[in-house]
Amino acid sequence: MSILVVGSVAYDTVETPLGRAERVLGGSASFFAVAASFFSPVNLVGVVGQDFGEAQLAAFRGRSIDLEGLERMDGKTFHWQGRYSLDLNSRDTISTDLNVFEFFEPKIPARYRDSEVVFLGNIDPVLQRRVLAQVDRPRLVACDTMNFWIHGKPAEVRETLKKVQILLINDQEARELSGEWNLVKAARAIRAMGPGALVVKKGEHGVLMFGEEGSFATPALPLELVVDPTGAGDTFAGGFLGFLASTGQEGDAALRRAVVMGSTMASFCVEAFSLDRLLTLTRPEIDARYREFERLTRFEKL
Amino acid sequence: MSILVVGSVAYDTVETPLGRAERVLGGSASFFAVAASFFSPVNLVGVVGQDFGEAQLAAFRGRSIDLEGLERMDGKTFHWQGRYSLDLNSRDTISTDLNVFEFFEPKIPARYRDSEVVFLGNIDPVLQRRVLAQVDRPRLVACDTMNFWIHGKPAEVRETLKKVQILLINDQEARELSGEWNLVKAARAIRAMGPGALVVKKGEHGVLMFGEEGSFATPALPLELVVDPTGAGDTFAGGFLGFLASTGQEGDAALRRAVVMGSTMASFCVEAFSLDRLLTLTRPEIDARYREFERLTRFEKL
Repeated sequence: MSILVVGSVAYDTVETPLGRAERVLGGSASFFAVAASFFSPVNLVGVVGQDFGEAQLAAFRGRSIDLEGLERMDGKTFHWQGRYSLDLNSRDTISTDLNVFEFFEPKIPARYRDSEVVFLGNIDPVLQRRVLAQVDRPRLVACDTMNFWIHGKPAEVRETLKKVQILLINDQEARELSGEWNLVKAARAIRAMGPGALVVKKGEHGVLMFGEEGSFATPALPLELVVDPTGAGDTFAGGFLGFLASTGQEGDAALRRAVVMGSTMASFCVEAFSLDRLLTLTRPEIDARYREFERLTRFEKL
Repeated sequence: MSILVVGSVAYDTVETPLGRAERVLGGSASFFAVAASFFSPVNLVGVVGQDFGEAQLAAFRGRSIDLEGLERMDGKTFHWQGRYSLDLNSRDTISTDLNVFEFFEPKIPARYRDSEVVFLGNIDPVLQRRVLAQVDRPRLVACDTMNFWIHGKPAEVRETLKKVQILLINDQEARELSGEWNLVKAARAIRAMGPGALVVKKGEHGVLMFGEEGSFATPALPLELVVDPTGAGDTFAGGFLGFLASTGQEGDAALRRAVVMGSTMASFCVEAFSLDRLLTLTRPEIDARYREFERLTRFEKL
C-alpha cells in the first residue's frame, strides 16, 4: 500500500555534544519518507525553496519516493537551528526560519489521491485536514502534532483528531493534549478524541502503545553512541507506518510489530547527523536489528 | 535457597500528591524481606529501637521471614521523612533521624551463616563486607548502594563490589558510580569492577540488565494509580532475588524472568503507602500480573 506523507522538508543546523552539522537535510517528511520507503512506496508532499537542489534531492532518489508533490517555491527552504543538552534529553531552538514553509499550501497531485495510508506530519492542523480532504478513501490515517499546535490551535487539533486512527506523539505532548499527567489516563482521554490507537514515543525510554486490545510497551535499544536525536520520532513513524502498510494487516499483532520496526529505524537514525545513517542502511541490517529487539526483550513464561 | 538480607528497618513519614502517611513501616530490608518471602525463606538482619513493637513486627510474622537477626537496641528506630514531587519522579528528604541505625553493627545469628543467597542492602559498604564475612559460602551475592556512599566512600564501595555478582542500582547511581553518562558504557565500567550482572532500575521507565549474555530490557507496567513510590526499588530487589533463589537457576533466562518478577512486585508496591499492598498480596495475584507483563511486551518475530 502506498503512503502519502505531508510535512516539512528542511535544512537543519544541529549542535550535539559530539559535533555540529551545518545546513544538512532535515524535516519531518524527509525522515519519515526515507524510513518508510524501505517497506512501502511513499508519496511526498512538501515545499522547498530555490536553494534546495539536486544534491539534496539525491537523498530521495533511487528509493520508492514519489517527488511530484514536493513543490519548489520562490524563496528559501525552511531552516531550523538547535542545540542539544549534554545528556541529549533536551534541546534549545536557536532559530526557526520558516521561509517558504510559512506559505505552504499543500497541493496533492492527482496520482497521490488513491494513497491507501496517510501520514499527517507535524504541520498546522487546518492544513492536515485540507490534505486529508484531497485523498479519496484512505484505509488508514495517522498523525503527529506538537505543543505549538496543542496550545495554539486546540480546537483545530481536536477536529483533525476525529479523522485519525493512529496518533503518534511524545509523552510530553500526550500529557499536554490530554491535561493528564498519568499516561494511562492521558491515553484514555486522547483515544476518546478519535484515534483508536495512541503511540507514545519516550525517546531513550522506548515506546508505549495504547489500543483497542490493551497496551504494548517496548524499550529503546540501549545504544553506546548517540550522535544526534534529530528526526528520531519521524523516523520511528516512517518505520512504523511503512512496515504496517507493507503487511496489509491492521490488528494488534501487526501494530506491535510495527512499533518494534519503528523503534528499529529510530535506533539507526540517532547514530549519525541528519539522514546520514538511514541513507546507507540496507534491509538485512534492518532485519538484524529487529532481531536484536527480540533478544533484548524476550523472557520465558512463568 | 534461603536469602540473608541486611538493610534498614525504619519508620517513614511520606507525603505524595495523593496523601500522607505518618510513621509507617519502611526501610530497605522491610520491603525486600516481604517481597522475597513470597518465593524463598528470608533471614533478616537489621536494627530497631524500643519504639518498634509487636504491631510493627506483625508485618513480618506469618511469613517465611526469620527475625532472629533483627536486633532491638535502646533508643528510637530510624525515621525518614520525605515529600514527592507532583510527578512522583523526584523527592526531597525533609529529615533523616538515624537513631539506633547510626550505631548499627550487624551481627549474624549462627543459623543464618549457611544462607545461600545474600542481599547487601543500601548500608555503609564497610558494614556490607562485614556481613558477607560472617556468611559461610554464599552461592550468590547481590548488592545495592546509593550516591551517599558512592561519593562518600568510593574506595570502600569498590572493595565491596569485588565480592558481588549482581549489583542493583538506579540509573543515576549507575552514572555516578561509573562516571559515564551513557548506560551502555556505564555498565561496561561497573561490570569491570566485579559484578557480572548490573541491573539498572529506571522507575516508571522499567529496568535494564547488562550481563554475560547481553542486555535485557523490560518496561514498567503502565499504572493508572501510583500512590507512593517509596520502597519500589527494594521491593524489586526482593522479588528479583526471591524468585531467582526459588528457581535454583543462575543463567541468563533465569535472570530475565527474575527481572520481570521484580518488576511485578514493584508494580504492586507503589499502589499504596508503606508495605500495605504487599501485605495483602497473594501468589495468584502475583502470577496474574507477571502474565500482564507477558501480554504488555510480546510481539511476533519478523
